[in-house]
Amino acid sequence: MGPPRIVPIEDTPGVAPMRDAATRDYVFNHTMLRVKDPLASLDFYTRVLGFRLVRRSDHPEAGFTLYFLAMVGDAADIPEGDDACREWLARQSGVLELTHNHGTETEPGPVYHDGNREPRGFGHICISVPDVRLACVRLEGMGVPFQKRLQDGSMRSIAFAKDPDGYWIELLQPTPLD
Amino acid sequence: MGPPRIVPIEDTPGVAPMRDAATRDYVFNHTMLRVKDPLASLDFYTRVLGFRLVRRSDHPEAGFTLYFLAMVGDAADIPEGDDACREWLARQSGVLELTHNHGTETEPGPVYHDGNREPRGFGHICISVPDVRLACVRLEGMGVPFQKRLQDGSMRSIAFAKDPDGYWIELLQPTPLD
Repeated sequence: MGPPRIVPIEDTPGVAPMRDAATRDYVFNHTMLRVKDPLASLDFYTRVLGFRLVRRSDHPEAGFTLYFLAMVGDAADIPEGDDACREWLARQSGVLELTHNHGTETEPGPVYHDGNREPRGFGHICISVPDVRLACVRLEGMGVPFQKRLQDGSMRSIAFAKDPDGYWIELLQPTPLD
Repeated sequence: MGPPRIVPIEDTPGVAPMRDAATRDYVFNHTMLRVKDPLASLDFYTRVLGFRLVRRSDHPEAGFTLYFLAMVGDAADIPEGDDACREWLARQSGVLELTHNHGTETEPGPVYHDGNREPRGFGHICISVPDVRLACVRLEGMGVPFQKRLQDGSMRSIAFAKDPDGYWIELLQPTPLD
C-alpha cells in the first residue's frame, strides 16, 4: 500500500463551514463497550493500559453495572462524593464506559462481537503512547494478544492489541517511527 | 428502575492498585466507527454535534478514506502541515475516526451494525452538553432521529439520538436535571 494521499480538508463535502455556537460546550465524553467479565476487563484497562476506575454505577435490579474509566493525570483532581464525581466525569473527554450485564462472566467462550467481522460497524479504540515499539514489547510481555503486530502487514507504524473481549486496541505514537 | 446503588470503587476486584509508570503518557486517543456515507456523517458530526474535521487520510488504492474529527475549542491550536497536524491529533483525547470504505454510499439501506442488536458489543458514544433538554430540542428540530427521548423509559436524564448510520449517541448534562 502506498502512502496516503493528502487532501485538503477544506475540499471535503458535508463539513459545516463553522461550529454552531450552540455546540460550543459540547464534549465527546465517552465510548461504551459491553464486557463479559469485569474482573478481566478492569485488570486489562487499569493495569495494562493505565486507565483509572473513576466511578461505578450498580443497577442490581436491572442486572447490570457500569464502570467509568479515564486516564487521570492526578487523582486529586477527582472530587469526592458521587454527585461531584459524576459531574466532573461528564465534563471530561476520553472516558471509557464498560457495561457488565450480570451473568455473562460465567458463559462459555466469547460473549460480545468486536465489530470487525460481519456485521461490521464499530472498529476499535486507540491509545496513543510515547513509544509504540516499547508499548508493544510491554504488552506482549504481559501476554496480551495482538490482532496485528507492528511488523505485520503494510502499516508498520501501528499495532492492534486485543482486550479480553477481543475488541481491537490500536496503538500508535504521535511522532514518526525512525 | 430504582436509583443505582453506589459501591465504593476501592472494593472493585480487578482494579490495579496504582498506575504503572510505563503508562503515564498513554492517551485514550480515538474511537473508530465505519460510516456508509461520509457526506451524511460529516454533516451530522460537524453541523449537528460541533466536531471539527481535523485531518483526512485518503487511501484510494486500498479503497478507503479516514476522517479524524475532534471538538476543537480554538482552531488556531491545530498546527499546519500534515505531519504536525497528525502529531497534534495523536496527543488529543476525544477524537472520532470515521472510516469510509469507498462505494458503500451507493448501497441501498443501512450498511453498518450499531452493536445494540445481536450480535452486541459496542454500545454508543456520548456527548455531554450544558443543557440536555435544550440539546434534545435542537437536535429534534434538525430532524435527528432518537432511539430514546428524555421522557422515554425510566432514565429521564439521558437521551439517545442516532447518527446517519444508526449508531447511538448518548446525550447527558453534567449537572442534575431540575
